[in-house]
Amino acid sequence: MMSLNKTHDSSRQCVVNAANDAQCDFPIQNLPFGIFSVNGSSPSAGVAIGDQIIDLAVLLENNALSGEAEVAAQAACSGPTLNALMALGNAPASALREQLFDLLDADSASDFDIINALVPMQDADLHLPANIGDFTDFLTSRHHFSRMRDKAPLALNFMSLPIAYHSRASSIRLDGDITRPRVQTVEDDIVSFAPTTKCDFELEVGAYIGCGNQLGAPIAVENADAHIFGFCLVNDWSLRDTQRFEGAPLGPFLSKSFSTTISPWIVTEEAIRPFRTTMEPRHSNEPAPLPHLASQIAQDTGALDITLEATIQTAAMRAENVPAERITLTNLKHLYWSFSQMVTHHSSNGCNLRTGDLLASGTASGATDDSCACFAEMTVRGTRPITLKNGESRGFLEDGDSLTISGVALRDGCARVGFGSATGTLVKNAEI
Amino acid sequence: MMSLNKTHDSSRQCVVNAANDAQCDFPIQNLPFGIFSVNGSSPSAGVAIGDQIIDLAVLLENNALSGEAEVAAQAACSGPTLNALMALGNAPASALREQLFDLLDADSASDFDIINALVPMQDADLHLPANIGDFTDFLTSRHHFSRMRDKAPLALNFMSLPIAYHSRASSIRLDGDITRPRVQTVEDDIVSFAPTTKCDFELEVGAYIGCGNQLGAPIAVENADAHIFGFCLVNDWSLRDTQRFEGAPLGPFLSKSFSTTISPWIVTEEAIRPFRTTMEPRHSNEPAPLPHLASQIAQDTGALDITLEATIQTAAMRAENVPAERITLTNLKHLYWSFSQMVTHHSSNGCNLRTGDLLASGTASGATDDSCACFAEMTVRGTRPITLKNGESRGFLEDGDSLTISGVALRDGCARVGFGSATGTLVKNAEI
Repeated sequence: MMSLNKTHDSSRQCVVNAANDAQCDFPIQNLPFGIFSVNGSSPSAGVAIGDQIIDLAVLLENNALSGEAEVAAQAACSGPTLNALMALGNAPASALREQLFDLLDADSASDFDIINALVPMQDADLHLPANIGDFTDFLTSRHHFSRMRDKAPLALNFMSLPIAYHSRASSIRLDGDITRPRVQTVEDDIVSFAPTTKCDFELEVGAYIGCGNQLGAPIAVENADAHIFGFCLVNDWSLRDTQRFEGAPLGPFLSKSFSTTISPWIVTEEAIRPFRTTMEPRHSNEPAPLPHLASQIAQDTGALDITLEATIQTAAMRAENVPAERITLTNLKHLYWSFSQMVTHHSSNGCNLRTGDLLASGTASGATDDSCACFAEMTVRGTRPITLKNGESRGFLEDGDSLTISGVALRDGCARVGFGSATGTLVKNAEI
Repeated sequence: MMSLNKTHDSSRQCVVNAANDAQCDFPIQNLPFGIFSVNGSSPSAGVAIGDQIIDLAVLLENNALSGEAEVAAQAACSGPTLNALMALGNAPASALREQLFDLLDADSASDFDIINALVPMQDADLHLPANIGDFTDFLTSRHHFSRMRDKAPLALNFMSLPIAYHSRASSIRLDGDITRPRVQTVEDDIVSFAPTTKCDFELEVGAYIGCGNQLGAPIAVENADAHIFGFCLVNDWSLRDTQRFEGAPLGPFLSKSFSTTISPWIVTEEAIRPFRTTMEPRHSNEPAPLPHLASQIAQDTGALDITLEATIQTAAMRAENVPAERITLTNLKHLYWSFSQMVTHHSSNGCNLRTGDLLASGTASGATDDSCACFAEMTVRGTRPITLKNGESRGFLEDGDSLTISGVALRDGCARVGFGSATGTLVKNAEI
């Protein structure tokens, strides 16, 4: 399951030159899946390589694939999302990855010249890669938990299970504008309905379910990684003013449902494998996971060493061509629970996970002050605004702010595996 | 929108005799939509009438429909769910209802004898009628809110907005077994993972979204009823032990996601229209709804006079052929918020509702002790078990208990409009 193979060999070069750039998110060792269209064509399955997209349908038309890889590509091209591919489990996608690797390998001879199947990324429109049936958002960063509670100690339930809530699937989108929502808030017991003043981002990573499980059949933690097809970036936009007011007793609702922005490419579990690492040990006064969530595999390899950052570009910065400024630098490896433990907990009551379901990590904050993965932590709920280099200050997002999250896995001896980015721009509510 | 027409005429008789029985849930004035199959055939669209199902595909094959009604039936028959019909808005379904009414009317002459399009209900398997993208569960009964909090006064947020949480769409099912889930609970600070001992039902009614809205485009309360295609019964199974432990700060998760049981037929907004009534007035010390949720139409017609009941049949009762015993009798008209207000609140932040989304009312308890719509209220969280006629007692559900919810709209001068029922049987977890 966790084994590496030739597709992880960092010495291999790609026939697509841009993929060999050390700063490129999509080298030959990454090969993330996505859905694209060109000039309004039907959305179709592709794989990112350098600054290009491999059109899988063209490979099929040219009989450039065989065996399980061909089956995988046929599934990927069978509809407007990747769900049929993801439902096959990870082996066919792995076979496809290997044949794509060979077709792209600069030192490998192939009958088919893959250059003929490439579409420049800049000419393509990207679409949601999966039909996401249910979207679940977890709370697995101890640092986020504590900072949001004035550094309170971890609650017993946080240490015993990966806390989560069902979130809203309908409003998941790729890059785009976010209209500042109107919400109910309370001040001095007076409730009002007005544009939110506390629009926040939350920098997270999400896992897509590949093979699901039947209702009533929990997934054992040892098998859970095999149910994860791949990963993407998630910005779980949050409205802190109404979140507090609406949240008792049933949790966040409108404070989350107005939009979630994800990155377009699904970085496969196989591509991320070299960046698995040991989970951070629990503190001595913290209970070990209960047996059904305890896993040596998770302990040894359940943390994902993915560097995450958030940048902001305000309207003023954009007008003056000032590039976006980084406001957060964190790493996914700090999570208290592994994705395998999230999958197992989620299904432990018999709940069925379906192909394409998205499980997000929760705000991936680190221990240091510069690794706060949302404004509410960074600015202590807006009370201590940050100052940007151009002198502007921000407690939360303002109209015109573009917030971009990005992620990349880096390790000595490994090729860079990037996630690309996801950007949302908060825009004024025109109806006000 | 709220007008009645000939399809509400209670004097009309149906060519299907069973539909004329005063106790029949499905008279000619109801005509709810569903999805059925026979002997493993492909799921197809049907309409309940008496003890029969009208096979809409047979009507189309025989050119028995015309105009907008034919368009509606074609949409209904275009896939394995009713979503395409529901997406058309309510006018085509209304046209279809009218033509079905004429075909079924004992006093009306038609070229096509609808008897040729009937399938006995007892020969059919029923399926989920819609692809439910997102499932939202509200908390709109003041009596449920207060009883669950030791008769605490209503919270400000309860009075200001219809409280809700995103729930789990994947585990919504029709009648069937519910495997007793294992969950984490805490006692004396010791956390354990074991079969739940507090499995509860919640008797609710759900509204299906017909026409949805675009992301960023809230639905005004005056237009909200037009976005509701119809209604069904919802049993929002709940696990009270883990609900309390897992719920802070993000609300219920595994305590709800293991299963939700709904009734198979969608009773249309048009069929339920004669049973609209005035919402119960707020108490003098309670704030009026904010302007975007305030609606004279909702105030005058937003309450639905639907009698709801829950019955239990234990394994012992079943073994002795003792019929199910009623444990709750309540009415949906007691809700604090109308479905139109739920739709408007849900979309007020710009969240897009999609065709087929299900919005459930929350536990529909009434003021009287015999109208508690869940065990947690009825037995004060299990501390005061009820005694059944055969001497058995129940604080929560036990293995082998079948819990059935049913609903019917009744009013003098109107034909009975029934919802049928939804049954779940709690079964032992075989893995323990």
